[in-house]
Amino acid sequence: MREINIALLGFGTVGRGVAEVIRRNSKIIEDQIDCKLRITHVLVRNTEKYRDLDILKDVVVTDDFNCVIDAAPEIIIEVMGGIHPAKEYIFEALNHRINVVSANKDLVALFGPEIMHTATENKVNFSCEASVAGGIPILKPLHDSLAANQIESIIGIVNGTTNFILSDMDDSGVSYSDALRVAQKKGYAEADPTNDVCGYDAARKLAILASIGFRANVTFDDVLVEGIEKISQKDIQYASEMNYTIKLLAVAMRQENGIALNVYPAFVPRSHPLASVKGSYNAIYVTGNIVEDVMFYGRGAGSLPTASAVMGDVISTAKHILNHSTGTEMMLTETKRIPFYSSLKLKNAYYFRLLVDDMTGVLSQIAAAYADNNISIREVVQKSRIEDAAELMIITEETPRENIIHVEKALQVLPCMRQVANIIRVMDDGKR
Amino acid sequence: MREINIALLGFGTVGRGVAEVIRRNSKIIEDQIDCKLRITHVLVRNTEKYRDLDILKDVVVTDDFNCVIDAAPEIIIEVMGGIHPAKEYIFEALNHRINVVSANKDLVALFGPEIMHTATENKVNFSCEASVAGGIPILKPLHDSLAANQIESIIGIVNGTTNFILSDMDDSGVSYSDALRVAQKKGYAEADPTNDVCGYDAARKLAILASIGFRANVTFDDVLVEGIEKISQKDIQYASEMNYTIKLLAVAMRQENGIALNVYPAFVPRSHPLASVKGSYNAIYVTGNIVEDVMFYGRGAGSLPTASAVMGDVISTAKHILNHSTGTEMMLTETKRIPFYSSLKLKNAYYFRLLVDDMTGVLSQIAAAYADNNISIREVVQKSRIEDAAELMIITEETPRENIIHVEKALQVLPCMRQVANIIRVMDDGKR
Ligand SMILES: NC(=O)c1ccc[n+]([C@@H]2O[C@H](COP(=O)([O-])OP(=O)(O)OC[C@H]3O[C@@H](n4cnc5c(N)ncnc54)[C@H](OP(=O)(O)O)[C@@H]3O)[C@@H](O)[C@H]2O)c1
Ligand SMILES: NC(=O)c1ccc[n+]([C@@H]2O[C@H](COP(=O)([O-])OP(=O)(O)OC[C@H]3O[C@@H](n4cnc5c(N)ncnc54)[C@H](OP(=O)(O)O)[C@@H]3O)[C@@H](O)[C@H]2O)c1
Repeated sequence: MREINIALLGFGTVGRGVAEVIRRNSKIIEDQIDCKLRITHVLVRNTEKYRDLDILKDVVVTDDFNCVIDAAPEIIIEVMGGIHPAKEYIFEALNHRINVVSANKDLVALFGPEIMHTATENKVNFSCEASVAGGIPILKPLHDSLAANQIESIIGIVNGTTNFILSDMDDSGVSYSDALRVAQKKGYAEADPTNDVCGYDAARKLAILASIGFRANVTFDDVLVEGIEKISQKDIQYASEMNYTIKLLAVAMRQENGIALNVYPAFVPRSHPLASVKGSYNAIYVTGNIVEDVMFYGRGAGSLPTASAVMGDVISTAKHILNHSTGTEMMLTETKRIPFYSSLKLKNAYYFRLLVDDMTGVLSQIAAAYADNNISIREVVQKSRIEDAAELMIITEETPRENIIHVEKALQVLPCMRQVANIIRVMDDGKR
Repeated sequence: MREINIALLGFGTVGRGVAEVIRRNSKIIEDQIDCKLRITHVLVRNTEKYRDLDILKDVVVTDDFNCVIDAAPEIIIEVMGGIHPAKEYIFEALNHRINVVSANKDLVALFGPEIMHTATENKVNFSCEASVAGGIPILKPLHDSLAANQIESIIGIVNGTTNFILSDMDDSGVSYSDALRVAQKKGYAEADPTNDVCGYDAARKLAILASIGFRANVTFDDVLVEGIEKISQKDIQYASEMNYTIKLLAVAMRQENGIALNVYPAFVPRSHPLASVKGSYNAIYVTGNIVEDVMFYGRGAGSLPTASAVMGDVISTAKHILNHSTGTEMMLTETKRIPFYSSLKLKNAYYFRLLVDDMTGVLSQIAAAYADNNISIREVVQKSRIEDAAELMIITEETPRENIIHVEKALQVLPCMRQVANIIRVMDDGKR
């Protein structure tokens, strides 16, 4: 039987998963491609750590990338992460006409088009399904199956860490910091959680999704980012009382003259399919001008789920190798930039939680501030009264972001205002 | 610019949608393939009906298939439906080396492998994404992106008519026959709704899904089918009280020594992602041994959503034509049969609704019948009492189907039994 030699760059969480899939499902894979996949080389920094792993017993474990290139594998799987030296290794592999599969969102979000260009020039494949939403098939379906659509919006829950924290706060009533600690204990959050909780990881994935969906070059820097650090148990409770749940959303939205790209926490109606995406699950909700709404749901991370996506790419690449058609089906090739729509003009309904002096006349002061900024109020509820302070919850009608920024400033200087405790977008259930 | 000529067989709901997409999104499509798609011929039975359509003004409308073949289009889109003459036309097209895209589930569920075989022999594409779940990308993702998985189960809500009826009964408290009438009025159900409400349509789609997921030849006849005709408003209410909703599920399940294929209504826990699939939406929930759970959700039918899937296939085929690689990426090619697991052995929890005489000793008679058939009872609730009759709801623990069939017979001959009003499977929330 024909064999395809594979080298793995990195043998951590995802690398081990890949090796395990090739071991466990070898027959299923061989039946499909009539060809054997064989891992011949694994590149790591510290070869000692990997010396005694049973699954690597017939594999060359090296810290020297030249040794990998010299072996001339037909496919290189890059699962080491980071920008350098992953970027240099990938370009070198492609220039050696080696097909590359990668799970590296950081890299793809910054250099996707450049990498694709080099792959096409060398008539080899570069694929990166695993770089967004782990095991969920999303990049290829978005690129191929929805190709006839003008994509109107992409709304993703694409960060498992924040979704775990928010779900835990919702389900168990714990505080943000307790939920974060649980996530760290369970391995869902890193010791330094900044990348996840501040929304940067979601922004990278959104850049990749938007590049494919809007067929343009969108990078991480184009995305405006807000994280979940300020979400308190109170916000979760108030959301819940109104039949909402809070999710960190990565949102790319076509506007009349550009694309708006934002990551932010938002109230999601419990009846919306995104609301039932719990814990470490991910989902991407796509609206096209032909297909209407579609959603893709599943495990957004983890050793095996991520390896499922990597290996889907590897099997496709193997088929292309056997058909002599590598380099023909590329996505993320667009270098064209598109106008970005100012997020200041983006309209949303908003939730405000305000701490104010508990005395007569306060409500009219506050209402005036909203009115002065052209904001209609949908609902005001006094939630609690502690000593001489009252907590107000206000839901606005749809309002441009800039008016919200203005009213925040106006509210902050009101004599009765103790704290503008939080401002969170509210997703409307729309036509659904 | 290079042009690809296309002929449409059929110009009904889906055919019109396809023409509309090519008109509306022509620029988006051309930008991707650097090539123009042009509908040159449309085949219908009654050409008169289509004479004055503006969208067909530069198109040859004919009732003669030879005229289509003689024009030698590069792609034929079959959206006429039915087995004959669609089958003959498709084979003739493939044998003339014309690529075919079809939305015809009836045909694909019966002759998928044969058609694929002919396409491969002629080195042309046959694709049929639209034949299952309308606009939802499912066949290609299942075949390609999840290729590294042993698929463990596929659970689909794949019939919009029944899902509309069940959702309407759940949301508005109407009876089955009223909900059916509404569905007919809104165009979701046909005048003769048998094909949908009895589960046959879902069974066809399940056959196609299972053929791809389990890489075997599964046909409509392999699926055991139960419909929703017996679901009453009471069943919906009792389900709701226990936090379930009733859905018609198409279920393919890997068992130790075979695949079990069933269509049946079932209680679905409201916390399960399938529970929030409402109205005419569809979803397919797939479990693989690597990826764990993934779900695909969207519009399961309708002119444009279905055309989105058809045109996704057309654009892929166009790329293959331009790359001279048609006939290389086929699915549904397996002719190998797999053992089918006897549904009699399949385990589920079950819901029983019983009408019994309202007198002492009844419960012990009934409990004895379950015990005699080795069925453990999880819950018994007396729901109502009308004159001298009582209505009981019983939920069993997981039990093989055959025991359920036996207990039904035993219950029916109990002196106290007035009616075994309904028996419905209960889906457990499992590990989620
Ligand atoms: N984990 C997930 O669930 C997940 C999901 C989707 C995508 N991804 C992406 O997949 C990639 C890998 O993630 P991971 O979680 O598997 O990472 P990981 O567990 O930290 O493993 C990284 C591996 O790469 C090796 N490595 C790192 N830098 C290297 C260098 N300069 N030279 C040689 N080897 C090097 C490490 O070897 P040493 O041990 O010798 O340092 C280690 O074997 C990342 O791009 C990540 O974003 C991960
Ligand atoms: N509708 C949906 O939402 C949907 C979704 C998924 C898949 N599908 C599938 O798509 C296919 C088409 O469905 P549809 O709803 O578009 O059907 P439709 O509205 O009934 O249209 C059928 C079209 O085919 C033509 N036709 C039928 N038999 C013919 C024959 N023997 N020779 C020539 N022309 C013939 C009809 O022409 P005349 O008017 O002259 O008879 C009509 O233009 C079916 O296989 C269906 O299962 C439909």
